[in-house]
Amino acid sequence: MSRKPIEYADAAPEVRAVFDDIKRTRDVPDVNNFWKHLAHDPAGLERTWESLKQVMAPGALDPLTKELIYLAVSVTNGCGYCIASHGAAARKAGMSEAMFGELMGVVGMANATNRLANGYRVPIDKAFE
Amino acid sequence: MSRKPIEYADAAPEVRAVFDDIKRTRDVPDVNNFWKHLAHDPAGLERTWESLKQVMAPGALDPLTKELIYLAVSVTNGCGYCIASHGAAARKAGMSEAMFGELMGVVGMANATNRLANGYRVPIDKAFE
Amino acid sequence: MSRKPIEYADAAPEVRAVFDDIKRTRDVPDVNNFWKHLAHDPAGLERTWESLKQVMAPGALDPLTKELIYLAVSVTNGCGYCIASHGAAARKAGMSEAMFGELMGVVGMANATNRLANGYRVPIDKAFE
Amino acid sequence: MSRKPIEYADAAPEVRAVFDDIKRTRDVPDVNNFWKHLAHDPAGLERTWESLKQVMAPGALDPLTKELIYLAVSVTNGCGYCIASHGAAARKAGMSEAMFGELMGVVGMANATNRLANGYRVPIDKAFE
Amino acid sequence: MSRKPIEYADAAPEVRAVFDDIKRTRDVPDVNNFWKHLAHDPAGLERTWESLKQVMAPGALDPLTKELIYLAVSVTNGCGYCIASHGAAARKAGMSEAMFGELMGVVGMANATNRLANGYRVPIDKAFE
Amino acid sequence: MSRKPIEYADAAPEVRAVFDDIKRTRDVPDVNNFWKHLAHDPAGLERTWESLKQVMAPGALDPLTKELIYLAVSVTNGCGYCIASHGAAARKAGMSEAMFGELMGVVGMANATNRLANGYRVPIDKAFE
Repeated sequence: MSRKPIEYADAAPEVRAVFDDIKRTRDVPDVNNFWKHLAHDPAGLERTWESLKQVMAPGALDPLTKELIYLAVSVTNGCGYCIASHGAAARKAGMSEAMFGELMGVVGMANATNRLANGYRVPIDKAFE
Repeated sequence: MSRKPIEYADAAPEVRAVFDDIKRTRDVPDVNNFWKHLAHDPAGLERTWESLKQVMAPGALDPLTKELIYLAVSVTNGCGYCIASHGAAARKAGMSEAMFGELMGVVGMANATNRLANGYRVPIDKAFE
Repeated sequence: MSRKPIEYADAAPEVRAVFDDIKRTRDVPDVNNFWKHLAHDPAGLERTWESLKQVMAPGALDPLTKELIYLAVSVTNGCGYCIASHGAAARKAGMSEAMFGELMGVVGMANATNRLANGYRVPIDKAFE
Repeated sequence: MSRKPIEYADAAPEVRAVFDDIKRTRDVPDVNNFWKHLAHDPAGLERTWESLKQVMAPGALDPLTKELIYLAVSVTNGCGYCIASHGAAARKAGMSEAMFGELMGVVGMANATNRLANGYRVPIDKAFE
Repeated sequence: MSRKPIEYADAAPEVRAVFDDIKRTRDVPDVNNFWKHLAHDPAGLERTWESLKQVMAPGALDPLTKELIYLAVSVTNGCGYCIASHGAAARKAGMSEAMFGELMGVVGMANATNRLANGYRVPIDKAFE
Repeated sequence: MSRKPIEYADAAPEVRAVFDDIKRTRDVPDVNNFWKHLAHDPAGLERTWESLKQVMAPGALDPLTKELIYLAVSVTNGCGYCIASHGAAARKAGMSEAMFGELMGVVGMANATNRLANGYRVPIDKAFE
């Protein structure tokens, strides 16, 4: 049973507070479906948003690089929603089509060589310990 | 049965040619274990190296960003050898400890929210189609 | 090419026998799509059902706990059909919306920390050996 | 390059504060390796601990059920450290050997049927939508 | 944002060259969607096709066995497109419904026992080292 | 806590019966570690062995092809024990080094293109529905 999204108009105050912070932080008129579905669990909604906000804030890595990493993980896991939403987020943060093509090339290659290393049972080089 | 690595001294000419190109391209005195184990399949060795060289060359994305993506995929897949070797490669390309901590934060978060999106069966927003 | 489901009316006797046992055991008027598709391979159908029936029977763990575990695995693997069917089964076995929210919190967290433990190459504590 | 764990004696004040809270909450004399390695990233350490503490607290699901779910995810992902540490945590929370055997039976079965549902391209039943 | 496929009529010369080789090699009137979407990255298109052509060519393993392996991996990863396209390719290469049922049985079993071996922390037998 | 393997001399009658059938079926003097660890759960031991015996028996697919598929899944999942044990089983069933190299080539390629199909959000061709 898929649950209905919780819209702002129907949301409890603690959910609205999180929605407001997402809209302010991202400068968007409404939150995307992910948050509206997570809102059935207000504690999980707040925890996930606070963690995500902290993790994606500019730091030693810039926002675009962080979005590229997020997208690479989502592609590896095959999460359809996440590929769509973080693909959009990465483009908004500056990912060009050429960057996307190169990211996909690296993701494909890493997924292949991860299996080669495991399948051939390659021992870790001393230099990498 | 784990197979022995093939050392340069014992390698066939077509394997040596690939080893030489790896050493030249990366400016290293010897190739790492991955290639020595892959060398049992000379065609696979050459194909993998040529693809990897093309994929990791500087382009729209710089080498450090590509190594970060490679590492993020390897961590997501839990490939021990790849985490060790691409962790070293990322550091060589300029990854600081602060960058590594932030990368791990993004990778952890993406792996969590990938499951939330699937588990809550969130439909893709029209804006992301 | 997606194959058509095999309905009871069209099923061979050995398939009907399994369908009957599923309906009796679960007290349902018809089997769900999973079994109708599996029925193209009668031996696989019977083997899968017999194993599932044994695994999900009440024992040291109660049926609700077993359904929660089944759902947690399905969410981790991102199996859309299984999330839908075992989400329904877990609710039938007593999973409340609050339980579902907490399960998702644990699943998200476990998927995140699994990557942190691998990515940071954490050695196993002696106490856990 | 695997990094050294950060011991309490060498930890910065904000790391010590988290270590103290872990020890108090779990009533243990020292934190396990996971936290000592995470401590290289104090912000990630605190965020991960605060989230984990919230997620694993008793609620609609009891602590044992939560540990069983955590273990089931870790086994599905094949995270060696997490299987060892959460196996120990589940036993401490009351998991008997019989419960562990049944959990493994469910995890194995779910991982198998997840692939059957995907491979046979089974459409979701209307009753599960 | 999902990108539009690139049709032959609109393709650049280097993309057309790859499309022509795919059509010739597989003796098909048009390439399937996978290649039309990959064509946004001409370098990735050519690299992927050349690697695939080499990997799937008859050798020590015949084409049917290679398609069965490809399908088994795709089912394990839960890639919907790949299950559909390589399911069709395997049938074209000679996979009967009975073979498909047995393949699914092995894939399900391997996915189950992979978790049992990890979850029970089974050490590798000396005979397998 | 890793549990000790259960040796034949210490095994209960129902465990011995399974061990005897494994030894007879495979014509080996002793069972491998997997079964000795599974023996802590006699019901799971018997269920797993009976299913495995049925799945791996010669049928529409020959034993070597089945072992190749088992190995391909194990490599994809990165299960160290399973790669070692089924690598040995595949060799015993006739896998040559050339076959192994080609299998690894297909497994690597499938793992790469699975991500390309998902990441590029390729819709399924009508011909594959």
